[in-house]
Amino acid sequence: MTTIAPLPYSVQWDNTHITLLNQQALPAITEFIQLHSVEDVYDSILTLKVRGAPAIGLTAAFGVALGAQQEAATDLADFKKNVTKHIERLASSRPTAVNLFWALKRMKNKLMEAQSISAAKEALVFEAKAIFAEDEEMCRKIGEHGLSLFAKGDSVLTHCNAGGIATARYGTALAPFHLAKERNFPLEVYACETRPVLQGARLTAWELMQAGVDVTLISDNMAAHTIHQKRINAIIVGADRIAANGDTANKIGTLGLAILAKHFGIPFYVAAPSSTFDLSLESGASIPIEERDGAEITSIQGIRVAPENVNTFNPAFDVTPNHLITSIITENGIIQSDFSNNIPNFVK
Amino acid sequence: MTTIAPLPYSVQWDNTHITLLNQQALPAITEFIQLHSVEDVYDSILTLKVRGAPAIGLTAAFGVALGAQQEAATDLADFKKNVTKHIERLASSRPTAVNLFWALKRMKNKLMEAQSISAAKEALVFEAKAIFAEDEEMCRKIGEHGLSLFAKGDSVLTHCNAGGIATARYGTALAPFHLAKERNFPLEVYACETRPVLQGARLTAWELMQAGVDVTLISDNMAAHTIHQKRINAIIVGADRIAANGDTANKIGTLGLAILAKHFGIPFYVAAPSSTFDLSLESGASIPIEERDGAEITSIQGIRVAPENVNTFNPAFDVTPNHLITSIITENGIIQSDFSNNIPNFVK
Repeated sequence: MTTIAPLPYSVQWDNTHITLLNQQALPAITEFIQLHSVEDVYDSILTLKVRGAPAIGLTAAFGVALGAQQEAATDLADFKKNVTKHIERLASSRPTAVNLFWALKRMKNKLMEAQSISAAKEALVFEAKAIFAEDEEMCRKIGEHGLSLFAKGDSVLTHCNAGGIATARYGTALAPFHLAKERNFPLEVYACETRPVLQGARLTAWELMQAGVDVTLISDNMAAHTIHQKRINAIIVGADRIAANGDTANKIGTLGLAILAKHFGIPFYVAAPSSTFDLSLESGASIPIEERDGAEITSIQGIRVAPENVNTFNPAFDVTPNHLITSIITENGIIQSDFSNNIPNFVK
Repeated sequence: MTTIAPLPYSVQWDNTHITLLNQQALPAITEFIQLHSVEDVYDSILTLKVRGAPAIGLTAAFGVALGAQQEAATDLADFKKNVTKHIERLASSRPTAVNLFWALKRMKNKLMEAQSISAAKEALVFEAKAIFAEDEEMCRKIGEHGLSLFAKGDSVLTHCNAGGIATARYGTALAPFHLAKERNFPLEVYACETRPVLQGARLTAWELMQAGVDVTLISDNMAAHTIHQKRINAIIVGADRIAANGDTANKIGTLGLAILAKHFGIPFYVAAPSSTFDLSLESGASIPIEERDGAEITSIQGIRVAPENVNTFNPAFDVTPNHLITSIITENGIIQSDFSNNIPNFVK
């Protein structure tokens, strides 16, 4: 029998440094790098070695704790000024990352409350660890709720990487699979490769294989045939943003899968922490869709696969309307439709 | 104003040789190669420089004509024996290509009927040209019927490459676009890249750009968002095999597009010559689906994009049930549902 190591943490606090899974090197190389300074942390966020909003926030929080440990100032005011500069530096690494700012704000609050340098150093490590533990616990709860929706032997399709390596542990859409593996609860997973950036092929397949989960990779356009042929029981995906009515923005391709789920009469689940909801948005119609460089379509890892100068359309996300979503799985429980009425009971 | 040359023929008879578009070099290099011997023709079919069932049949037919021109035998029986060897050699280049055998059989019949060497040489060139002209005319008729279904300014989505470079000219699903361009009839085309082998990105985008057609390339999983966002009016695809009830086997991804068309309330058209029908098959359930090597999914042009040893599922085709197909466009006219009753009127 093959013994499979549990999925390693993608971000880990090691007192004198941070150990980080270099997600840029996946799937060719499984490489953990040591971050020994705030600049190392800044660089790892900037160059996408760490990805996934929660994982970026965690890494930055540990970066603040690391910078504080290394701070030589002996005057409390100087210390706070210098650590604040580290926080500002880290905040500039990914200008649109909401989780990053949220985590850094928590760290800054702890810094400002501290009455001594030693107390500040201790509190900052503690706070970063707390952010980590809260994220892990949240993902575990999403996994628990998600797993309750599956039966032993189910085949489940997923898209992109809403995985453990994007969070403290477990992930969101992938959390039920990790918990199932821990409990010897048999599930088969099908992962869509997720063009153009191939997060499914590069990350989800790697992550689930590391954890010993039974995963099969398909091209995105094989989903319909696979659902039919392999008798897929459910589809589960993550979310980038959910409106007050349940409309969900997620990685491009999600809408198509939701339509297939409806056609084949199988449930379509969205798994996301309650922080993903933006109740100021009445519906998905007001969620802006980022369009990215067409080179992501015309080249794959530097190899050109389409003619020079071809027109492209490269939306990074799509919006799945609430009526195509069976349930939304959060750390606070499973939200059933009708979402407009039920979401406020789960999202504070 | 930019002058755009018409799409060049992918196979051309030039009396002393055959000029062939090297489809293996697309889209990076647009290269025409000269085939000067039966061995050159054999090699170009074997190494996929020519692809698409009709184009392979045409190339082989011209190969027989070429071999006959170069034959030194002065005795009619010897001549027929030698040319028959050429035919057998060419028949062994792609063992499952029905069109190839069909074209070679026509050539062999002409060879056997001939009363003299000079008559045989003439008849073989004539027959190859006739096969070519018939294919071009059939594609033009499919294009005419297909174009009658579109309105000026329509946006149409297509998949894979059911194109002019796979036939004598015009193609099947792409034929309406070529005819529209010739007539200044404005259409916008969206092409799905068609993973895993990327025929849409490599071939359809190239072919339509060459012809000056307004084409935009998307990843396959962008289809749902694109149909919604860009107000696509119709989807048109080719076919590999059509059963007596209209169920259609075509490139993997076709079924998903047909389901999207139904969801968004737009027509889904299949364009194919009447020779694509296999009336011995009652329904699509009896069409075997080829599964291909998972390396097509895990590597793109030699670059690995997924972990080593990952499980894959790589069906090359899927079957779209007849109730998801609006009409089937043939050279004999447009077949409307109910297909079981109507197909016999169009397929002899």
